[in-house]
Amino acid sequence: MFSKQTYINRRNQLRSQFKSGVLLFIGNDETGMNYEDNTYHFRQDSTFLYYFGLNKPGLYAIMDIESGNDYIFGDDLTIDSIVWMGSQPNISEMASTVGVEKTGTVSQFTDKINSYQKGTVHYLPPYRPEHHLKLMRYLGISPAESSLKVSIPFITAVGEQRNIKSEEEINEIEHAVSVTAEMHQAGMCYAKPGMTEAQVAAKVYEVALAAGGSISFPIIATINGQTLHNHYHGNTIKEGQLFLLDAGYETSMGYAGDMSSTFPVGKTFNEKQKEIYRIALAAHNGAIDMLKPGVHFRDVHIQVARVIFDGLKGMGFTKGNTEDAVANGAHALFFPCGTGHLMGLDVHDMENLGEQYVGYCGVPKSKQFGLKSLRLGRELKPNFVITIEPGIYFIPELIDLWQQNGTNKDFINFDRVNEYRNFGGIRNEEDLLITETGSRILGKPLAKSIEDVEAERAKAF
Amino acid sequence: MFSKQTYINRRNQLRSQFKSGVLLFIGNDETGMNYEDNTYHFRQDSTFLYYFGLNKPGLYAIMDIESGNDYIFGDDLTIDSIVWMGSQPNISEMASTVGVEKTGTVSQFTDKINSYQKGTVHYLPPYRPEHHLKLMRYLGISPAESSLKVSIPFITAVGEQRNIKSEEEINEIEHAVSVTAEMHQAGMCYAKPGMTEAQVAAKVYEVALAAGGSISFPIIATINGQTLHNHYHGNTIKEGQLFLLDAGYETSMGYAGDMSSTFPVGKTFNEKQKEIYRIALAAHNGAIDMLKPGVHFRDVHIQVARVIFDGLKGMGFTKGNTEDAVANGAHALFFPCGTGHLMGLDVHDMENLGEQYVGYCGVPKSKQFGLKSLRLGRELKPNFVITIEPGIYFIPELIDLWQQNGTNKDFINFDRVNEYRNFGGIRNEEDLLITETGSRILGKPLAKSIEDVEAERAKAF
Repeated sequence: MFSKQTYINRRNQLRSQFKSGVLLFIGNDETGMNYEDNTYHFRQDSTFLYYFGLNKPGLYAIMDIESGNDYIFGDDLTIDSIVWMGSQPNISEMASTVGVEKTGTVSQFTDKINSYQKGTVHYLPPYRPEHHLKLMRYLGISPAESSLKVSIPFITAVGEQRNIKSEEEINEIEHAVSVTAEMHQAGMCYAKPGMTEAQVAAKVYEVALAAGGSISFPIIATINGQTLHNHYHGNTIKEGQLFLLDAGYETSMGYAGDMSSTFPVGKTFNEKQKEIYRIALAAHNGAIDMLKPGVHFRDVHIQVARVIFDGLKGMGFTKGNTEDAVANGAHALFFPCGTGHLMGLDVHDMENLGEQYVGYCGVPKSKQFGLKSLRLGRELKPNFVITIEPGIYFIPELIDLWQQNGTNKDFINFDRVNEYRNFGGIRNEEDLLITETGSRILGKPLAKSIEDVEAERAKAF
Repeated sequence: MFSKQTYINRRNQLRSQFKSGVLLFIGNDETGMNYEDNTYHFRQDSTFLYYFGLNKPGLYAIMDIESGNDYIFGDDLTIDSIVWMGSQPNISEMASTVGVEKTGTVSQFTDKINSYQKGTVHYLPPYRPEHHLKLMRYLGISPAESSLKVSIPFITAVGEQRNIKSEEEINEIEHAVSVTAEMHQAGMCYAKPGMTEAQVAAKVYEVALAAGGSISFPIIATINGQTLHNHYHGNTIKEGQLFLLDAGYETSMGYAGDMSSTFPVGKTFNEKQKEIYRIALAAHNGAIDMLKPGVHFRDVHIQVARVIFDGLKGMGFTKGNTEDAVANGAHALFFPCGTGHLMGLDVHDMENLGEQYVGYCGVPKSKQFGLKSLRLGRELKPNFVITIEPGIYFIPELIDLWQQNGTNKDFINFDRVNEYRNFGGIRNEEDLLITETGSRILGKPLAKSIEDVEAERAKAF
């Protein structure tokens, strides 16, 4: 946890954005897997963590703007629970560590929230079923309505504040990224032909847990890197295949790291793999070179699209005028996702608040295939933390769909593409801080060039 | 997954317990951690798995007793999802693998469930917030009422059926237990003074993930074994301490293993530790010796209490007549939990259905401290799978509370107990099948005697 003053300052900054009303923060509960008491690891709501710091289930907090009072509500452990779970500080002791002097039970929270006039209570978008139940119970808002009645001013104020990382946050994130790099290095120095994907994922997971935190998102560890959200780990990996690892560490305070790496299952890349890898890496490094305050991230993404399209043109996969092709989204056959996203207490920072408000300053996102998956489309500012993660993917289902529909047929040589339909996917991903004059790659360095990756791979054999 | 016929047979057996009405099975959804799309690993509802086998989120199933029809409802992937998640069989293809021919979309499920008369739809106890929301949406039952209107006949029929494990289930559970033993052995051969608890837990977790499944419950890996539900892994472990590990494997089909082991952080137990360990082990082995069909598990538990009380009497911790002491629950100062529980698709099998129905045949549980934590209090039958896990714990908060209140002061030498207040806790746990004539320990053997544990520990150094 940061110092008491950090949380006081954060709340004061938020308070200064409002003249009246009440800000409600609903902490997360434990979540049962197959019965109530067999729980997943607890994950506090990130906005609750940011302003109130307490990493415990069952809490509520209120900022009463007019009175200037902040409250934390929750029930203390019973003696029965202490026997089972050990002694723990009570709510008022915990609250005082984050500078909150007014505390109460959940029953007192009910009284307090009922004392406010309807419509004056601001709340953030619910993203768990329990949030819907609580909004119904405490604010009388039905699940059907609870996403519609969220407070845009609250979302916007939180988004603008959390987007600018403080020095102590940057240190914490840098730690997360360094452990993330260790996770990747462990995988890179461990995977060998004949193992399952699960064995590699397990080794990567071990590094995260051993460091005292957890993973910031479910590990992707796959020979099918072209499947972007792929959490299946059942395949046996073989010489000649590419292995795509996308994994990140979450510190005990909740800050995330997020990196991707791609390496050969054998000792070395083959020539086909090297050619594609070089294009992806050129796009990656080109994107990093562009990063500085004032640059619009959409422009970074478009430049990545150009580099990928041009590189693939050199190999005969694409054709025609690059500007026209990118404007038409033809690159998205190979690069259907975004170049990067905000990162902080959430690996996709504040995705729960809505990308439109946090990543797009309220401007609607493009609906074009590819561009609609770009999570960040605004001007960069100093102290933003973002990921850079261009990739090149050969997705058989998408190739077939486009070919069948003639999508972007003026820009794609489908016959040539089909020669690579089982190629897989390649992605590198790093985490960067936007500085006053440019950017800085966070965390320990991880092998990225073909030579460096192959040097790491040699250690596995 | 088991064969189609297994699921058909299971449903037919369940159907035979009802003359009319509709049985509703609500499958589990994905659960977001800090935003909707950053999910915990998916865990299907166990009863859904048992009768309908499909390990996917967002499904509903219905057994219409009068028509004899079974249905599975869920939405197929869109082409967008296929691009992100790869090709997957559609609902009707998946349903046919478990012998269900009638399928539909979630919208068709809504129509179907609305077509039944109110009150004829049986449902099982909700244990996730999403279940409450769904019961409200589909059956019009408010969250306040949804736990009250559950179907006791449905609970009872499922409980009686799932309690009797088939041969193919026993094989699957035995596999879970064998991997569980490997997890423990890995921890036992790895832990060394100077490590954190998290490093040991991470190694144990790695073994589970590498085997292609997951953990069946959050790992307990602690030098504070006396804190029974302890998931804190932040301590550095030191020579002279005891390490208590309670961890289990969950197979990809959802079946659980659950074992505990206790070993010295150094190479060997000290004399104090050996003395207590021997008492706990005698209680453990004595419990196993009693297991056979017809034996009441409450009697096994009481016998364990006697052995622990007597053993501790020999060391001067307890005094007085053992029968009177156990009747008064005096043993529970050292053994406040149960001797074992049912195990199957859930590590505490069917805890979500209510222990009173599943573990107690509908008879209310004792309210005595200690006995109230016994999850199983009924006659054993062939093909039950249970755990045996007596332990001896020195819980400072509980010692202080009893001493202060004079609880069982005729049976406890508090001065002597206080000499051991920082001793920690000891537990062994194994998983057993009740056979026709007795019982059989499931899975690969794990070091349990002092000599065997010390032999394993030597490998860590």
